Amino acid sequence: MADAWVKLWPRVTLAHGGGGLETHELVERLIVSLVPEGLRRVEGGWGLDVLDDAAILPLGGGRYLAVTVDSYTVKPHFFPGGDIGRLAASGTINDLLMVGARPLAALDSIVVEEGFPTGDLKRIVESMVATLREAGVALVGGDFKVAPRGEVDGIIITMAGVGVVEGEPILDTGVRPGDKIVVSGFLGDHGAAILSARHRLAGGARVESDARPLTDLMLPLLDRFRPFIHAAGDPTRGGLAMLLNDWARKNRVVIVVDESRVPVRDEVRAYAELLGIDPLALASEGVAVLAVDPAVADEVVEAMRSLGYESAEVVGEVREPPASVLSSTVPANLSSGGFRVLEPPSGELVPRIC
Amino acid sequence: MADAWVKLWPRVTLAHGGGGLETHELVERLIVSLVPEGLRRVEGGWGLDVLDDAAILPLGGGRYLAVTVDSYTVKPHFFPGGDIGRLAASGTINDLLMVGARPLAALDSIVVEEGFPTGDLKRIVESMVATLREAGVALVGGDFKVAPRGEVDGIIITMAGVGVVEGEPILDTGVRPGDKIVVSGFLGDHGAAILSARHRLAGGARVESDARPLTDLMLPLLDRFRPFIHAAGDPTRGGLAMLLNDWARKNRVVIVVDESRVPVRDEVRAYAELLGIDPLALASEGVAVLAVDPAVADEVVEAMRSLGYESAEVVGEVREPPASVLSSTVPANLSSGGFRVLEPPSGELVPRIC
Repeated sequence: MADAWVKLWPRVTLAHGGGGLETHELVERLIVSLVPEGLRRVEGGWGLDVLDDAAILPLGGGRYLAVTVDSYTVKPHFFPGGDIGRLAASGTINDLLMVGARPLAALDSIVVEEGFPTGDLKRIVESMVATLREAGVALVGGDFKVAPRGEVDGIIITMAGVGVVEGEPILDTGVRPGDKIVVSGFLGDHGAAILSARHRLAGGARVESDARPLTDLMLPLLDRFRPFIHAAGDPTRGGLAMLLNDWARKNRVVIVVDESRVPVRDEVRAYAELLGIDPLALASEGVAVLAVDPAVADEVVEAMRSLGYESAEVVGEVREPPASVLSSTVPANLSSGGFRVLEPPSGELVPRIC
Repeated sequence: MADAWVKLWPRVTLAHGGGGLETHELVERLIVSLVPEGLRRVEGGWGLDVLDDAAILPLGGGRYLAVTVDSYTVKPHFFPGGDIGRLAASGTINDLLMVGARPLAALDSIVVEEGFPTGDLKRIVESMVATLREAGVALVGGDFKVAPRGEVDGIIITMAGVGVVEGEPILDTGVRPGDKIVVSGFLGDHGAAILSARHRLAGGARVESDARPLTDLMLPLLDRFRPFIHAAGDPTRGGLAMLLNDWARKNRVVIVVDESRVPVRDEVRAYAELLGIDPLALASEGVAVLAVDPAVADEVVEAMRSLGYESAEVVGEVREPPASVLSSTVPANLSSGGFRVLEPPSGELVPRIC
């Protein structure tokens, strides 16, 4: 299977890294399929078999360990609202929170290009450390390497994080028909900020990245609503469109989104239109998306707002797939009264957005 | 402190990534010093405060979690005796073993350059998975990104690993005067293999990398000798010279090495001489170095040999520092009868060796 795929795609393309359909396919064909089934998870845990935000290992006594690792290659390294250090720390912390874990510790592995300004490196590390501190997460180890000039463009930060889940983890496979889809804030800010910083055509409106750790949101929500939160995710590469399509596919359900209720800043929407990109496919780095029991959906939104996430909204709901519809489609209910299918993103999207 | 250092070194140099003195200094000044003391470890564990092979977090019940992360940038990606996938898996597993942990699971974060051959990627992943399988370690998650052409040279693999320590971890700070230094095999094979593959002047002798997981060596040794193993490390970047100097500095002791007993292959020694490099500063990726109670040193060597590590040797011993000698020096007892100081490596050494 992997060999046939290699013949079809003899070289890696930018689309394979976009976080959309092509990434999903490459990861399935060239990584997951090469790992024997028994080696995809630790006994009693979840790993490559589910590909959630973090891997889960049993600790015994009703506790689990959550572990995650991600590489951050964003360019520019400093952008409105953040930098690669804040992004790495936020992304790592949020991946742990999205499986229901309390983040405990992080480790960073930094690869820099020969000649990289040490003053910039210091600013990046300071920002990374400040973000971890904000979330009460320790920096307990790491690695540091230098690549000869021209062999890495500036800096790549890979961050690993560990956290503890008390009770059962929150998995993407927990979405149930009837669930409401709640988002904690404006979608697409990070993607729009990076694009506008790169293209320098913000058109007057300065869009800031939303990169932030969601500890102050998720820990209180987990305390209060844990049994009613059926799934959680952060819409990074591929945005809300990719996340909901993932959930629909993994749970064989239809998720209907009321597009008029999805919070997107006017300047982000205008900017996305200018570029011909669906704003719902733009990355966020400080937004939580939850599938919750409908009985508590409004309470969850209220709680989010009282925690300072004022733009929180119920944006959709989960339905049984009608027999005639592909189980993995996500129709978006348009403000005009019609429907469109919210496609899982594909193609190049935005390289080095995170 | 960090600012003064930034003025002194306005740009990162290759030497900062060599794994020698300059790397140590950069990590101390630009990373560790920027992390508040309370954030350098999790309560009851060890982290940036000790900078051991892996970070340690308490799990309760007399158990600890070991976590490590390292980026692998080796070039060429395929070399005699291994490839970047085998190297990443071996290095991660060995870091966990060197703190006394049983490796359980790994996560990989791969960044490839646009245009990278998918066939090569497949071979690398297969090799990584085969190495993990050899050691009984699951691959439970990861990340995959693509950088535009020219922004990464081929592929970088960052691997995180987690393991469990039953009882107390083995820390570098456990070295005691009187301890014997035991090595499990030939030193410097990996470094020589990469250099000769890169320079293509192996001179007839083909040196193979020793990259391998040391699970089959360390788990039986830990079972049998755990209380007598005072410190453990693998001599990667900077080789045995860096490792022993680290131990000497951390424990304020002198370590005397009998150079005539250090196992180095003739072809590695000849090749190092040709390049004017100390073979004891060349990296190994499949060698364990232990500081053990002198009462069991010969037994440990015998056990290593019976486990298939036939070149295991006692190569030195730990002494109280004489008042007149800097505590961190490592004298090497020369076969000629004299002594030389085994300097901690500095300068460029070999970029992208691991």
